[in-house]
Amino acid sequence: MADALDELLRGAAGNPRVIGLAGGLPCPTLFPRRELTAAFLRALQTRDVPALQYAWPEGFPALRGHIAARLARRGVRVEADEIIVTSGAQQAITIAAQLVARRGATIGVDAETYPSALDAFRSLRLLPTTSSQARVLYRMPAVSNPAGSTMGEEERRAALAHARFIIEDDAYGDLRFRAGPPVPLLATSRTHVLYVGTFSKTLGPGLRVGFLIVPPRLHARALRRKADDDLQTNSLSQAIVQEYLAQNDFDAFVRKLRRHYHRRADRLMAAVRRYLPAWSFKAPEGGFGLWISTDARVDEATFLRRSIAAGVSFDPGSRFLTEGGGRDQPTTLRLCFSAVPEDTIEEGARRLARAWAAVRRRSPRRTGARRSRPTALR
Amino acid sequence: MADALDELLRGAAGNPRVIGLAGGLPCPTLFPRRELTAAFLRALQTRDVPALQYAWPEGFPALRGHIAARLARRGVRVEADEIIVTSGAQQAITIAAQLVARRGATIGVDAETYPSALDAFRSLRLLPTTSSQARVLYRMPAVSNPAGSTMGEEERRAALAHARFIIEDDAYGDLRFRAGPPVPLLATSRTHVLYVGTFSKTLGPGLRVGFLIVPPRLHARALRRKADDDLQTNSLSQAIVQEYLAQNDFDAFVRKLRRHYHRRADRLMAAVRRYLPAWSFKAPEGGFGLWISTDARVDEATFLRRSIAAGVSFDPGSRFLTEGGGRDQPTTLRLCFSAVPEDTIEEGARRLARAWAAVRRRSPRRTGARRSRPTALR
Repeated sequence: MADALDELLRGAAGNPRVIGLAGGLPCPTLFPRRELTAAFLRALQTRDVPALQYAWPEGFPALRGHIAARLARRGVRVEADEIIVTSGAQQAITIAAQLVARRGATIGVDAETYPSALDAFRSLRLLPTTSSQARVLYRMPAVSNPAGSTMGEEERRAALAHARFIIEDDAYGDLRFRAGPPVPLLATSRTHVLYVGTFSKTLGPGLRVGFLIVPPRLHARALRRKADDDLQTNSLSQAIVQEYLAQNDFDAFVRKLRRHYHRRADRLMAAVRRYLPAWSFKAPEGGFGLWISTDARVDEATFLRRSIAAGVSFDPGSRFLTEGGGRDQPTTLRLCFSAVPEDTIEEGARRLARAWAAVRRRSPRRTGARRSRPTALR
Repeated sequence: MADALDELLRGAAGNPRVIGLAGGLPCPTLFPRRELTAAFLRALQTRDVPALQYAWPEGFPALRGHIAARLARRGVRVEADEIIVTSGAQQAITIAAQLVARRGATIGVDAETYPSALDAFRSLRLLPTTSSQARVLYRMPAVSNPAGSTMGEEERRAALAHARFIIEDDAYGDLRFRAGPPVPLLATSRTHVLYVGTFSKTLGPGLRVGFLIVPPRLHARALRRKADDDLQTNSLSQAIVQEYLAQNDFDAFVRKLRRHYHRRADRLMAAVRRYLPAWSFKAPEGGFGLWISTDARVDEATFLRRSIAAGVSFDPGSRFLTEGGGRDQPTTLRLCFSAVPEDTIEEGARRLARAWAAVRRRSPRRTGARRSRPTALR
């Protein structure tokens, strides 16, 4: 499992001298620790402690009620009973894919997309989302990963008109900086959209509370898969999130997160423009990172190694690419502004520029890296 | 998903007037709430709060160290690095089965066994463990579910000699009443045994912390499956269990649980002997329930409905049986002594006897029930 890039990234993640622009992690200082602690204490004081006991596969009813109510405010009509709480968004993606695409079938994905979704689609054949053969799509309409872009109206309409099923991954929807989360595709079609949501980017990924909403005719199969896979999502986290949502203004908290990550994004963009002016990127609409095209093709592992030696890490672009990154295209990468101490962002870009200059000088390589095992990317 | 038996059991589980001898749940008053709360508070106070953050797919290193140390005391040589923390034992069983048996392959299981394992083996062909064709076995050598029996020496030797792979489910091993957990099969063979463990029966199933140890040559594939399925086991529970194990005498706690469940088992056995003397069972070596053969064949759903009306529930035997319960065999059932208030056990048996008398009187049916969706059984 551990390839060379993985080993490098694991080493860097544990090294306090490395400014971590890799990983796609939320900012640990923003976890609402006090509120989650209060929620835990309330959950542990209830009679028979459901937080520690077995629960039904579909998840805690009150939690599903909160999720349904939040979605209703975004124009989605869904009953709490139609929601399945999952062990994070990843399990929801995996189950969704198993429901709508058999081994060897095709799935349309963005040219650059979430690596662990590509892992979940390991047994499928990947196509561009624009291919007429791609009748099942995996999309992140609100805020894509890694590009941080929002699907336009026309693209939404085309996808809904053409696709038989769309797996709508809304993991970053809450973190759309300016406009807030758009109306999900799910609001337009309950029959063709499999919707994936999560509390990982807001309350904390360690809780592993995501959710899945599938077309009603697929619900029983989805629930059976969920039960077969791990019986139920962990009760403790469900109880905590449920108590948290009952006692706090989650939407106000999410707005605070948006402002915070927006400011960080601005800071990283300014630093990249300053220290690496030849690199190009689009300002992200939300999320945790910048998707960058550099101005040369270099060996990814060499660049990563050099960067880590210079005291900064990044996510190699090949991991997000379905085709190994187009062997003649400039090297790509994702830079995350989300988890690093905010006042180190500029220094991170400065170190990256130093490493880039050194690697670029040596020899622009032509050999593209294979897309390899992404175990550590979100 | 919800068949008639399921609906009945769900209704009964939420009804405070029903004495719950169904479900296979641990006793909620025995969860070490205070110690788990202390562990939570310590985990939330650490810098960068790994309890709320993403973690690597294999699980928390210190937790795996504790697991390895406990197994070492039972004669198993395993490194912490060889252990994969899973989202409960169920995920471990599912991954193990996927590693060693392709769709349509055969697996040998006990005549009566854990319903959710049968779910995990949905795409496989079930055989008796004694079949010479069964080269992959699923067994619970320490304490079986539902029978509560321990594999004898000869049977262990035969299984190890004959099978290509054995999935060893040790979920109840800690709760073997008298002798404590036996040496796992894993101690004898690291190359043929896939070992499944859990903290669900001791610290609390709601935590969803289990673990999987596979032959070294299968480790990378197991870890990849784990990451594909749900990225990682929830960090919060891992941090709590890790802190709990560091600060408490877990083995002393487990001994207390054993005595407690042993006493409850004795109480239920005495009550069944008194009120239902025609029923037969073997005294369980450990675990949460009694596996019972009645003295007549009746319609399961009718009996369950009647019992619930009389104020007691049980687990229908058909769910544990691979063949739907042998249509001409007496009706079977599992009675759990584990979760019900201890002083209601006798009254539970009394009510059950009343329901049984009423149903048995009507007409012994010959039509066996199909084994149906067991979503609520452990």
